[in-house]
Amino acid sequence: MQRIEADYLMETPEDPARVAAIMAGEQSSGTFTAIPGETEAVKARAAATVTRLAIVEETTAGPSLPSAGLALPPGTRFRRAQLTLSWPLATVGPSLPNLLATVAGNLFELKPVTGLRLLDIRLPPAFAEAYAGPRFGIAGTRRLAGVTGRPIIGTIVKPSVGLTPEETAALVAELCGAGIDFIKDDELQADGPLCPFEARVAAVMPVLHAAADRSGRMPMYAFNLTGEIEEMRRRHDTLLKHGASCMMASLNSVGLAGIIELARFGTLPLHAHRNGWGYLSRHPLLGWSYRAWHKIWRLAGVDHMHVNGIGNKFAESDESSLDSARACLEPLFPDKPCTVMPVFSSAQGPRQAPATYAALGSADLIVTAGGGIMAHPGGTAAGVTAMREAWQAALAGEALEAYARTRPALAAALERPA
Amino acid sequence: MQRIEADYLMETPEDPARVAAIMAGEQSSGTFTAIPGETEAVKARAAATVTRLAIVEETTAGPSLPSAGLALPPGTRFRRAQLTLSWPLATVGPSLPNLLATVAGNLFELKPVTGLRLLDIRLPPAFAEAYAGPRFGIAGTRRLAGVTGRPIIGTIVKPSVGLTPEETAALVAELCGAGIDFIKDDELQADGPLCPFEARVAAVMPVLHAAADRSGRMPMYAFNLTGEIEEMRRRHDTLLKHGASCMMASLNSVGLAGIIELARFGTLPLHAHRNGWGYLSRHPLLGWSYRAWHKIWRLAGVDHMHVNGIGNKFAESDESSLDSARACLEPLFPDKPCTVMPVFSSAQGPRQAPATYAALGSADLIVTAGGGIMAHPGGTAAGVTAMREAWQAALAGEALEAYARTRPALAAALERPA
Repeated sequence: MQRIEADYLMETPEDPARVAAIMAGEQSSGTFTAIPGETEAVKARAAATVTRLAIVEETTAGPSLPSAGLALPPGTRFRRAQLTLSWPLATVGPSLPNLLATVAGNLFELKPVTGLRLLDIRLPPAFAEAYAGPRFGIAGTRRLAGVTGRPIIGTIVKPSVGLTPEETAALVAELCGAGIDFIKDDELQADGPLCPFEARVAAVMPVLHAAADRSGRMPMYAFNLTGEIEEMRRRHDTLLKHGASCMMASLNSVGLAGIIELARFGTLPLHAHRNGWGYLSRHPLLGWSYRAWHKIWRLAGVDHMHVNGIGNKFAESDESSLDSARACLEPLFPDKPCTVMPVFSSAQGPRQAPATYAALGSADLIVTAGGGIMAHPGGTAAGVTAMREAWQAALAGEALEAYARTRPALAAALERPA
Repeated sequence: MQRIEADYLMETPEDPARVAAIMAGEQSSGTFTAIPGETEAVKARAAATVTRLAIVEETTAGPSLPSAGLALPPGTRFRRAQLTLSWPLATVGPSLPNLLATVAGNLFELKPVTGLRLLDIRLPPAFAEAYAGPRFGIAGTRRLAGVTGRPIIGTIVKPSVGLTPEETAALVAELCGAGIDFIKDDELQADGPLCPFEARVAAVMPVLHAAADRSGRMPMYAFNLTGEIEEMRRRHDTLLKHGASCMMASLNSVGLAGIIELARFGTLPLHAHRNGWGYLSRHPLLGWSYRAWHKIWRLAGVDHMHVNGIGNKFAESDESSLDSARACLEPLFPDKPCTVMPVFSSAQGPRQAPATYAALGSADLIVTAGGGIMAHPGGTAAGVTAMREAWQAALAGEALEAYARTRPALAAALERPA
């Protein structure tokens, strides 16, 4: 029997088993008030069940999330439980959009729930049949970028916004000259009046083609085509017309139906930006874990997923970021792995290479450094060289400092304050 | 000059003015490391500015949200500030999807930020020109539902899932017989194998047409067409073919580009379900306020917005729910109000009518009661009658108990435990 499963971390001042049962009811055939129509036959074919419940923590330090109307005298004991809900596939059908309302719908608002986080989801094979998954994934991305045996080293056009198409193209020319593998638009740059999408593509692509003519390898540029459905369709056609090799979209801006549609009509690797992830995940007892969330997008068809990175400028711990990256490389289904390129970003530079490689155990990643490349004291070319050298050292198992002795670009990068 | 403005509540252990400036930089032309390309000319045309900053609260009770790598010794003072960021329209252009990355992107993850909530947004007229807003809104919904001068009284098909199309149609027949104005699918019910969309529409619509033939007024049924773009297009066509008068979609399942597309091709009132709203909003120092969030969807073209309700079964306070409802009725732009029907739901029944009307000052609303109607001791017809009578009392300014003396359906409803 095919079933959908979701794991949660749940906090409540009430009986966790009873609250878990309320969650299962709310998200399937139950309702707040018992009604005549919820027969045993209906329950048998549609009801969710609680298949696991383990108390993991107790606290009297107050609720993680406020709940209006819940009497919580001082000293109230809150228990945190890990639990699993299980639905018959027939309740929902193999539909990603409708899966969301089922595993991540109203239940975050239940009154007796003072904390709820979706930790993971497991989907039956029917989902693997209904969705294509990544069209390019790791192998396809490597083929188009012309990079094997090491990470794809990239950067982000900076300043994020404010450059004209011509200024962007000039920067791209500099980056190509420096031997960059990958460039992406900032997520703030899509089709603003200062740098319209069509004009940017028209200005940048000849530069990339010229680089390919010189080196035999065209740097991959992820153009941010985030927008409405018809806009994305037109922009995708523009990319094809100009011979681009990657498209980028902001997942939380486009949303799930839009990304599924883009992945269906799109014929380029889809570089997925996760901006907004903070509001979905930042509180440890609310929202989404990356492990649950990223599976939706992998199945929907993205090829590259952002994971932040070691020593990032954001609030996320290194451990969390590395776990996200590892998740991207784990198979989604035994015979349909849907693995995607984890994309490291945010204050990345040469220093993070050894620890990132050690933790991931793979060179299948994209690392983007903005300031880390463009603010190198020797200029952009030295910035790219330093990143490459750092990853050469990491892959060879050599310490950065030793490797830098004969490599001035890396040495100069390491001399800058972290 | 056209500008985009966003108001935030922000918590930080650092200097709030400095952190606000980091936010403005991160979300426009700045980057973590100063780079040569961020010239004064670039800043002048693209940079966001902090236009307001007011400290509203101080606490030493620890951070609202964890931040890895931030040294926070016991006794650390956290300040909470309300602030406004302002962007030139030219930075983004009048694009709702790209607006999200700008006002609600990476900034929720900034390391020195231990709390961040988007309180409100204000958009320049260019957005009003770029988006249609609600196609039906309040007047169009009333016209199609045939209800004037009082709220539209509705219900939700329950059990949420598990009924066959024929069982659903039988329930709808009962509700029509009882004089219901509005019926909606549960958000869990879209196109599952137990009750496929096409079969449900085909079974339900003849019942609604028969009711219209009898009474001259067809109850409005919001069929949940949530799905992928092409699925929603097909389902919309099915609705037209059968003469349906409303469509429903889950905002967080479909996402923004999908909802914009649906609103563009759709020719029926769009009933928007907000399931998942909890993970966007439940922590008071994280995520979205309803006031900011709902504006996006109104402009995108939805006609009905869920707002929960007084005495709901969820964690939200009455005050918060009523503020959301009031927001739905406030104009978005002076000459393009984009007002939408607030939809009250969750444990609603006759009891809430007077306080809801008193707080809202308007009868322009949809109220849906599931158990509140279907679990009436006198049956569904008595449940609908009780709801109608409660609202008649509220609109007439009469106390429910007095009004119920000569009205047995209302009296029976009020005798049940709240």
